[in-house]
Amino acid sequence: MRTHMETISVRYAETDRMGVAHHSSYLLWFEIGRTGLLREAGHPYKELEASGVLLPVIEYGARFLLGADYADVLAVETTVREIRSRVVTFDYVARRGNDIIATGFTRHACMDESKRARRFPEYLISAIAPFQG
Amino acid sequence: MRTHMETISVRYAETDRMGVAHHSSYLLWFEIGRTGLLREAGHPYKELEASGVLLPVIEYGARFLLGADYADVLAVETTVREIRSRVVTFDYVARRGNDIIATGFTRHACMDESKRARRFPEYLISAIAPFQG
Amino acid sequence: MRTHMETISVRYAETDRMGVAHHSSYLLWFEIGRTGLLREAGHPYKELEASGVLLPVIEYGARFLLGADYADVLAVETTVREIRSRVVTFDYVARRGNDIIATGFTRHACMDESKRARRFPEYLISAIAPFQG
Amino acid sequence: MRTHMETISVRYAETDRMGVAHHSSYLLWFEIGRTGLLREAGHPYKELEASGVLLPVIEYGARFLLGADYADVLAVETTVREIRSRVVTFDYVARRGNDIIATGFTRHACMDESKRARRFPEYLISAIAPFQG
Repeated sequence: MRTHMETISVRYAETDRMGVAHHSSYLLWFEIGRTGLLREAGHPYKELEASGVLLPVIEYGARFLLGADYADVLAVETTVREIRSRVVTFDYVARRGNDIIATGFTRHACMDESKRARRFPEYLISAIAPFQG
Repeated sequence: MRTHMETISVRYAETDRMGVAHHSSYLLWFEIGRTGLLREAGHPYKELEASGVLLPVIEYGARFLLGADYADVLAVETTVREIRSRVVTFDYVARRGNDIIATGFTRHACMDESKRARRFPEYLISAIAPFQG
Repeated sequence: MRTHMETISVRYAETDRMGVAHHSSYLLWFEIGRTGLLREAGHPYKELEASGVLLPVIEYGARFLLGADYADVLAVETTVREIRSRVVTFDYVARRGNDIIATGFTRHACMDESKRARRFPEYLISAIAPFQG
Repeated sequence: MRTHMETISVRYAETDRMGVAHHSSYLLWFEIGRTGLLREAGHPYKELEASGVLLPVIEYGARFLLGADYADVLAVETTVREIRSRVVTFDYVARRGNDIIATGFTRHACMDESKRARRFPEYLISAIAPFQG
């Protein structure tokens, strides 16, 4: 199974008064991971949208083991948990050095430009298959 | 069971190029709901923090049924799913008129100012008990 | 001169590790002020966009006198500094009680749906004139 | 004069329903530029804060010439316009290829950990002098 890897540096604006990254920031990092995986698979998300393949988020979840400080450098690993005809699920692991600081997933439907449900195109299913466990 | 109610108006900056609110925005609205519940319970979160009771998020999840457009007015209902000695879980429902557009939860540990695990103070458990189902 | 008034409560996520609201948050509050003024003038920004009147920001500026803490309640006053055929400038004052904590402005061009420059419609110029000093 | 260079990739979440990056996003990119310059000068901002040198923003401004689309790769150049005993001003230019898409500045005071005004330490003034025009 291939894993897509992104390196994230925690922005000052992403922290809150507790001194660590706000929990919503992880969704932005997961988004960077997911779109990076699609780019690595040969289908940048911007091109997918231009061709009428939109992937709105229909569910997400995350667990936090450690906080992320300002300027921490994190490795975000993205894989595909499952892809069916109309739903795809991505898994994420965020690490700082050897420590896992958070895990998460996002689930997406497939929509066309008019925001009607559609099936994933076959080329997309094939392209991301190598990232599935 | 009491429910805490907040009204949210979707900000322009909270939308993305798909034309609807970005999925991370819901966590900010849930935060408004949760801190509003604490305030209604007599313990504004700012005062809790000042007294050494911090509630970092250790897990969250959300499901989306409909998109939220710019300027939509949403009702966010917050309740307490469960409170144990060291972990509390809040549930959220976001509605637009009669439609549920999203549901979610957040789970929080209890930490002191030095970021060590601690038990919830009894007064907090009692204060939020009426919001539990 | 009329002034449009909005009340803002500083969100936890809007603070950063310095303990006060991040300086970018003010632009979101100014946006609430500006779109509130348009709504008070009878032309909600969403309807303007739907009718082919987009107001992209071409310049902004802000000065900060005091920090805004989490949960502070701020009054944001918005007025129109100047409206010409193709450029409009809004002024903002953010107060906490009697203290001015920040001032700012945003300048906007007028674009149609195809993102070409256009003149402001006369009805919009008339509608916001009462908010000009 | 030295210029500090950062490369920014526009995040999906940074766009709004107009289809381009929200105008507040530029402040986050400028922050990456400014803190990158400090790091290149040998004084990462996190270390400055730890040593009691905080640089709150007291003023900012920006002008926009072109919009930034999702996934655009931007070069953000940061220089020092002026440093005096208690105020420093940074200038920013954001480019996409050969096009300047935005310019801006931020002005900062110097504060200690108790949030009292203080002078910049001499070592910091010397370290960033090479970035001044």
